[in-house]
Amino acid sequence: MKERVFTANLALPEAGLVKLTWGNVSEINRDSGLIVIKPSGVPYSTMKACDMVVTDLNGEVLEGKLKPSSDLATHVELYKAFKEINSVVHTHSKNAVMWAQAGREIPAYGTTHADTFYGVVPCTRQLTSKEVSSAYELETGNVIVETFKEKNIDPLAVPGVLVYGHGPFTWGQTPQKAVENSIVLDEIAEMAAVTEVVNDTVLPIPQYLLDKHYFRKHGANAYYGQI
Amino acid sequence: MKERVFTANLALPEAGLVKLTWGNVSEINRDSGLIVIKPSGVPYSTMKACDMVVTDLNGEVLEGKLKPSSDLATHVELYKAFKEINSVVHTHSKNAVMWAQAGREIPAYGTTHADTFYGVVPCTRQLTSKEVSSAYELETGNVIVETFKEKNIDPLAVPGVLVYGHGPFTWGQTPQKAVENSIVLDEIAEMAAVTEVVNDTVLPIPQYLLDKHYFRKHGANAYYGQI
Amino acid sequence: MKERVFTANLALPEAGLVKLTWGNVSEINRDSGLIVIKPSGVPYSTMKACDMVVTDLNGEVLEGKLKPSSDLATHVELYKAFKEINSVVHTHSKNAVMWAQAGREIPAYGTTHADTFYGVVPCTRQLTSKEVSSAYELETGNVIVETFKEKNIDPLAVPGVLVYGHGPFTWGQTPQKAVENSIVLDEIAEMAAVTEVVNDTVLPIPQYLLDKHYFRKHGANAYYGQI
Amino acid sequence: MKERVFTANLALPEAGLVKLTWGNVSEINRDSGLIVIKPSGVPYSTMKACDMVVTDLNGEVLEGKLKPSSDLATHVELYKAFKEINSVVHTHSKNAVMWAQAGREIPAYGTTHADTFYGVVPCTRQLTSKEVSSAYELETGNVIVETFKEKNIDPLAVPGVLVYGHGPFTWGQTPQKAVENSIVLDEIAEMAAVTEVVNDTVLPIPQYLLDKHYFRKHGANAYYGQI
Repeated sequence: MKERVFTANLALPEAGLVKLTWGNVSEINRDSGLIVIKPSGVPYSTMKACDMVVTDLNGEVLEGKLKPSSDLATHVELYKAFKEINSVVHTHSKNAVMWAQAGREIPAYGTTHADTFYGVVPCTRQLTSKEVSSAYELETGNVIVETFKEKNIDPLAVPGVLVYGHGPFTWGQTPQKAVENSIVLDEIAEMAAVTEVVNDTVLPIPQYLLDKHYFRKHGANAYYGQI
Repeated sequence: MKERVFTANLALPEAGLVKLTWGNVSEINRDSGLIVIKPSGVPYSTMKACDMVVTDLNGEVLEGKLKPSSDLATHVELYKAFKEINSVVHTHSKNAVMWAQAGREIPAYGTTHADTFYGVVPCTRQLTSKEVSSAYELETGNVIVETFKEKNIDPLAVPGVLVYGHGPFTWGQTPQKAVENSIVLDEIAEMAAVTEVVNDTVLPIPQYLLDKHYFRKHGANAYYGQI
Repeated sequence: MKERVFTANLALPEAGLVKLTWGNVSEINRDSGLIVIKPSGVPYSTMKACDMVVTDLNGEVLEGKLKPSSDLATHVELYKAFKEINSVVHTHSKNAVMWAQAGREIPAYGTTHADTFYGVVPCTRQLTSKEVSSAYELETGNVIVETFKEKNIDPLAVPGVLVYGHGPFTWGQTPQKAVENSIVLDEIAEMAAVTEVVNDTVLPIPQYLLDKHYFRKHGANAYYGQI
Repeated sequence: MKERVFTANLALPEAGLVKLTWGNVSEINRDSGLIVIKPSGVPYSTMKACDMVVTDLNGEVLEGKLKPSSDLATHVELYKAFKEINSVVHTHSKNAVMWAQAGREIPAYGTTHADTFYGVVPCTRQLTSKEVSSAYELETGNVIVETFKEKNIDPLAVPGVLVYGHGPFTWGQTPQKAVENSIVLDEIAEMAAVTEVVNDTVLPIPQYLLDKHYFRKHGANAYYGQI
């Protein structure tokens, strides 16, 4: 599991999604409740699989000499609220950050979006001063959960979010899937920004095309891929 | 032929045109009517030439243990309607997708465009709900063919199209040529978008310059290249 | 000399300035009047130094089994008119093409520009139908020369141009310098486009700053570099 | 120390921040007052650690056969005025240059900005004709110092600046940190430009979020990273 989380973390700079020590991937084992996460501020070039930190669902470190990612509390809240997900990824990938900084949800402008995200990728509200000063990372998790509850969005159908003024979190049933969702999110963020430049009155794709592409790849009637 | 289709498929991520398992290349043998196409959802890094799937013009798999690309039916419709082409490529290359999402044809703003596409790269109409829910991939092929017929465009002179809200298809007489056309289409899509930013009243190049560049490279009087 | 021209040609795809077989570099020996130029339409990956084509100032091939670049006549006109230059480069590098397609000269918005180009990078007028249909490549050279004469620009002080609706040509006293000028031209073209997006009322830098940076690197009082 | 400065200089093209011979890194030893800086106009590919030039705080060369970077006087002024910094980096990285050319400070639109820069990244005023013609590089240093004094900005809290019409300088307590600040500056410059395209009425993040992110990584109560 450390190996898997390590490999998924390395995939972030390889995909061009993180610079310096930014970004982190975690995985949870739902049976034991153990979380494996990247250590805080360690360069990707020297990081080893054994540097991964093991914690419980209270964020207590159980194994590892290094401090866990400072974003651990956000991951924990997501694991608590979204029971179906087993991995969380956070990056500052530039195109997703641009939308987060703009404070806008990403409309579903095409099938590339629909293949992975069943509807808009939401953007949270701004955190309040009190939330930021009390338990910032935990409240970041809470505002994500709040966003999905208020908008009635299924976190498996829309496996990612923009945190206002900050950047993207994505998730999935495996670290590999969660990383792939980060790759797709950054790609559709870039596509959407320029789509609006090319046509400033563009509309989202119709619901029936969103349905078609999403369910071509997901759910009982999926027929994309080898199973 | 499998080897050639395999190589052409690998050229897509190398050229930066596809991410993850997106994109597909096929080739048809016009004598036998056999089509070789990429399998669905297989990672480029582990794909082998022998994984290529052989089908007939009804889309029936004749050889190969894997399922063919889910876009096979689109390729088949293009082969049926455009008799002169022997290879079809589909990608979600980001710049071409931006124009497809914007629902706009790409104007011929320069000679880079004219060297490969003899006139605008058209964008199809939106598919109807009925078309999407009945036989989506086949109807995607049909709407491309309809676009070329209605606009009276020769598919060899304009070897590519944008499918509204989706992305580009290109084609050619060989897989290598079809892939090259995808590379050019993405490049001119990016150039055209920023051209409009730099000059928001820009006009297409005049017909005589379009003629000159296109026929410098194509047809009986071509003088570009070694033959 | 073939080796030098070959190396300079290879530098174009390495610098990301050309795709496929686009682009070409030539060099002239001013004593013998011999020109060495890239062959037409040959892939960079298989091209060899011995494939370079030798011609005279009439464009007659003197050595080489391959046809010279179809843009040879443009190079020849530039060598005839601009006596101080020994190498010409043509690319379809995307940022320079965007300005050429927009039909706009590139304003000197900063010192990166001023370090290499002493003033605006001009854009030619559109070629007429007659010019295009008669001797297109030669007339392309002529319109460049006309532009520099009419605007009274010294081709050594501004070693590059945009051909309307087409793309950039650059030059220099060596192939290496001419290629470097293509790299800089594409970079400042990109910088200028986004500069206008960030500030839509931006003005060029003042003449005294243009003077300072240009003459810091060029002319008798230059003090940049090791001599 | 030469080795360290050499390595930091090489990090610039590796990070995609400089082309050709642009950019330079220096370091000062505060005890001896000695400065080590990149030589002027030497290609990164052939540069060696022993090519680094040693000067004193008057800019006099003490060691090294090559001329120091032409920007040395700017570095010297920064070392004189900003006592806490030990390394200075100058690049023409394209996104930072775009803002410098636009003559705009970069607003703090998100936490990526706040993690490194505690508030706007300022842009200097335009240098006067007299300043440019008298002692240009020294006056470039002076206008940076003036900017930080007039706006009452702590150079350690905002370790970078845009020089109007020119480009970025960054600094730090080590060459590695100063280079990292250049990487971050270019990244946030790109993010900020497109953020404004995606939302043309975007506001900076609130002060409390800026505080939170900056002090999460800096100062006595920092808790990011391993110490």
